[in-house]
Amino acid sequence: MRWWGWGEDEHATSLPAPAERLLRDELGIEPPGAPRGPRGGPESVALPTSRLSDIARRGLVDAVGAEHVADDHAARVTRAAGRSYPDLIALRGERLEAGPDAVVRPANTPQVAAVLAACAEAGVAVVPFGGGTSVVGGVAPVAGGHRAVVALDLTRMAGVLDVDAVSLTARVQPGILGPALERELAGSGLTLGHFPQSFEYSTVGGWVATRSAGQASTGVGRIDELVQSLRFETPAGPLETLDVPASAAGPSVKQMVMGSEGVLGVISEVTLRVRPLPAAKRYEAWSIPSFAQGAEALRALEQAGAAPDVSRLSDEHETALTVALGSSGSRAEALARTYLRVRGHERGCLMMVGFEGENATVAARRGRAAEVLRSAGGVNLGQRPGRAWQRTRFAAPYLRDELMDRGALVETLETATTWSNLATTYAAVRDALHGSLEALGTPPLVMCHVSHLYPTGACLYFTFIAKALGGRELEQWRAAKTAAGDAIAAAGATITHHHAVGCDHRPWMGAEVGELGLEALRALKARLDPAGIMNPGKLLPD
Amino acid sequence: MRWWGWGEDEHATSLPAPAERLLRDELGIEPPGAPRGPRGGPESVALPTSRLSDIARRGLVDAVGAEHVADDHAARVTRAAGRSYPDLIALRGERLEAGPDAVVRPANTPQVAAVLAACAEAGVAVVPFGGGTSVVGGVAPVAGGHRAVVALDLTRMAGVLDVDAVSLTARVQPGILGPALERELAGSGLTLGHFPQSFEYSTVGGWVATRSAGQASTGVGRIDELVQSLRFETPAGPLETLDVPASAAGPSVKQMVMGSEGVLGVISEVTLRVRPLPAAKRYEAWSIPSFAQGAEALRALEQAGAAPDVSRLSDEHETALTVALGSSGSRAEALARTYLRVRGHERGCLMMVGFEGENATVAARRGRAAEVLRSAGGVNLGQRPGRAWQRTRFAAPYLRDELMDRGALVETLETATTWSNLATTYAAVRDALHGSLEALGTPPLVMCHVSHLYPTGACLYFTFIAKALGGRELEQWRAAKTAAGDAIAAAGATITHHHAVGCDHRPWMGAEVGELGLEALRALKARLDPAGIMNPGKLLPD
Repeated sequence: MRWWGWGEDEHATSLPAPAERLLRDELGIEPPGAPRGPRGGPESVALPTSRLSDIARRGLVDAVGAEHVADDHAARVTRAAGRSYPDLIALRGERLEAGPDAVVRPANTPQVAAVLAACAEAGVAVVPFGGGTSVVGGVAPVAGGHRAVVALDLTRMAGVLDVDAVSLTARVQPGILGPALERELAGSGLTLGHFPQSFEYSTVGGWVATRSAGQASTGVGRIDELVQSLRFETPAGPLETLDVPASAAGPSVKQMVMGSEGVLGVISEVTLRVRPLPAAKRYEAWSIPSFAQGAEALRALEQAGAAPDVSRLSDEHETALTVALGSSGSRAEALARTYLRVRGHERGCLMMVGFEGENATVAARRGRAAEVLRSAGGVNLGQRPGRAWQRTRFAAPYLRDELMDRGALVETLETATTWSNLATTYAAVRDALHGSLEALGTPPLVMCHVSHLYPTGACLYFTFIAKALGGRELEQWRAAKTAAGDAIAAAGATITHHHAVGCDHRPWMGAEVGELGLEALRALKARLDPAGIMNPGKLLPD
Repeated sequence: MRWWGWGEDEHATSLPAPAERLLRDELGIEPPGAPRGPRGGPESVALPTSRLSDIARRGLVDAVGAEHVADDHAARVTRAAGRSYPDLIALRGERLEAGPDAVVRPANTPQVAAVLAACAEAGVAVVPFGGGTSVVGGVAPVAGGHRAVVALDLTRMAGVLDVDAVSLTARVQPGILGPALERELAGSGLTLGHFPQSFEYSTVGGWVATRSAGQASTGVGRIDELVQSLRFETPAGPLETLDVPASAAGPSVKQMVMGSEGVLGVISEVTLRVRPLPAAKRYEAWSIPSFAQGAEALRALEQAGAAPDVSRLSDEHETALTVALGSSGSRAEALARTYLRVRGHERGCLMMVGFEGENATVAARRGRAAEVLRSAGGVNLGQRPGRAWQRTRFAAPYLRDELMDRGALVETLETATTWSNLATTYAAVRDALHGSLEALGTPPLVMCHVSHLYPTGACLYFTFIAKALGGRELEQWRAAKTAAGDAIAAAGATITHHHAVGCDHRPWMGAEVGELGLEALRALKARLDPAGIMNPGKLLPD
């Protein structure tokens, strides 16, 4: 991955003319004269000197071997940030306020335990580091009052240890990346089916630590539903849960680990619930007259147990940008547009649906969904846009680099709420983003989609783009983020459906779980991490 | 409910002749000369005098009003025990070692909080009490070093507060019993679909506190999957979770409450995920050549996403007793037997499957399941036994009274494990029960069924019957229970799939969650219940 953005350089895209026009006309954002990424390599980034003491270093070397303790500039810079907007601003500006004082790369579970022991002994904070793709500051190198902070890089622990093809489980190490995991499972005819947007660069450990949801979570479930059992190293020792499908033996210890974002310990092994590779996949797009009608149709499908595995409905604004981005200017497309206009869909909403499974089942499910979508006024746009979506499903973060090159503020945020509260929450967050950014003189384009369906509600995923306030990017970002977070909390929705809490959502954790809920989490932390070395500054407000 | 057993007196059953023969021939158990239940009412049961101090009583009266603080003999006896085998032995013997020193009946959430405050102040332990149906000692009146213990009877808090028909949720109070809940929901065309065997006499609060699973959990999920949000009163204050379908904001606080069995606090409100009442129900029975083949067929169905909502496969031993119990001696039945014998099923296993939902869906799912069952050598026995099972699905506890009247030890226990570990666990538990009871000279009849399917495994539910050792019932019971629990732990299976931990499973909690897992739970308890007044002696080993 590019050390200052997303993807590799050769993947760089460029925007089609209609998208450029839309950005210029609506937001005053112009195409860049030249790419604005940093000029040098990671070596050229300003970074405070490492504070790692010789004693602490000796402890780490004893734990993992000298060749796996790095404190050179490049190693530190590349583990100094995640991929949030503030992270990207700092990396592009080639100036980091802080970095890990060293990077430690254990090879196995005993080495993880040894690193934690050495750090507790030496008063060094530990930031578990997988793919480094957090968009909420989850891997920020915060020392939290300790003498130093190290990044515990888990990417050497990236194996599939065991596959139980009878029980459909796979025991894996935490540092394995999405593509490698799926490649290994495919060798046994299996898949996990967990495809977050960060899939290419994120790890199993990161997914579990943040309670991630993949794009097909409507069909296969969230990562917390896909974990059968796990092993967890804490400064107070290991936690290990039983490899069983379910239990009634007390509050779930597994659930205490999932979503703990490194503040309680380090996930060192995960047994995942896998499934046979689907024989058939069918992705297609629909045009639905309005966002409200589309949401109602998705609710009907989900509550009837008939939802597609991937279900994603863009609002009018996201639809417009998606169409502009996908615009090829071909004659077929122009005809399709005319057809939709005649049908009253010129302001319609794009819906993407995907079905995976056995051939017969996919056909039957697809037919049932089509019935519901047609009665909601939907028009089938066929499989071509569905295939295009599948091809580009991980592309949005690449696009963000493009937009930042043009001097745009671009950010996403997500929440979940009940179906009956969906429209209210949608309006409140839109208003908050518009209000806060208009007050700064940078009116935004705010887009949203409904995805990740549940019988009782769904996720709302917002993207907003505005002209960046040069030199005041963080102030501008914080104004928008605060307004949106406050609106979400006031609506009684969750502050995060799948991005997690990290640094950025901490102010709303009190609204999320209440004061006593925070105290319960702090009590767990005090017991499992008595010295408070684990990932300071994340999840729990100070 | 009968104060010393299950059901009401008018429901008393009697065993058909073939069942009587089986018990006599295999176990030496004879029909009783006369029912052996206790002669008097609850007033005649020996019970230590109430230790409630005047000061403590005043605090409770202030909290709920004098008319809702009872310390008469009948009130105390009827909240002194659950429905475990040791409980029934004590009640039938009309001698209780302990009882609650008073029974307190709050009307609402503030009164629950006031009771907890008064008890913390006065040093009085609190046992939350719903239906009192625990089979693991979950409501035993243990004072745990405190001056007294009260039963916090929640049955006055039994309302449905709110139904959100759009989001399919219902906010209910904890003390509502299964039938009342389903009756109220049916008024809105809805159902929860949670039908544990205790359904008629157990409460929502009890289900959630014990992470219960209903008979249709394969279809609708466990209770912990059916809880959207909840409110929880602890001695340290209230916990309240958001009414959202999902969240990634830290470890789930909701999951810390579910399964906490009253040791952290009292569930005072639950928002449940409900669903439309099914238009169609189809229950039918199959005969499968062997338990192993049946389990394999259930695995195939579940892993293909095609399992019936209720799926239950009896082993050869349970099948024999079920047939004996259902034996009407009719000519049709004799013919059916002949037919099965011809097909090689004379030693076959009974499988009960149930489908609920829309008409078309039920038909399609039923057809798909039938295909798999036929290819496993199954023979369809039609809907008549299916309907009989539906009628008698809550009957087993009534039957237990019958068997105890005859001087039988009768007990059930359950576990869950992966599909690949199912046969090993099954054999280990059977051997343990046989070995331990044969060593005491009382060879048992051990029966088992597979139920509650998951893609990665299933529940094994054991019933065992032996001639009771008169006067040494508890010693005999403990020997069997210990042998079975040790076998389960050694097999790596869970000590309980849906009965919970209570007093009886505490010795195996260390095997279940490890020493540090216990410490994590204790840390939560120390923070939420600093005086340790909540349900002493349950869940956590001392």
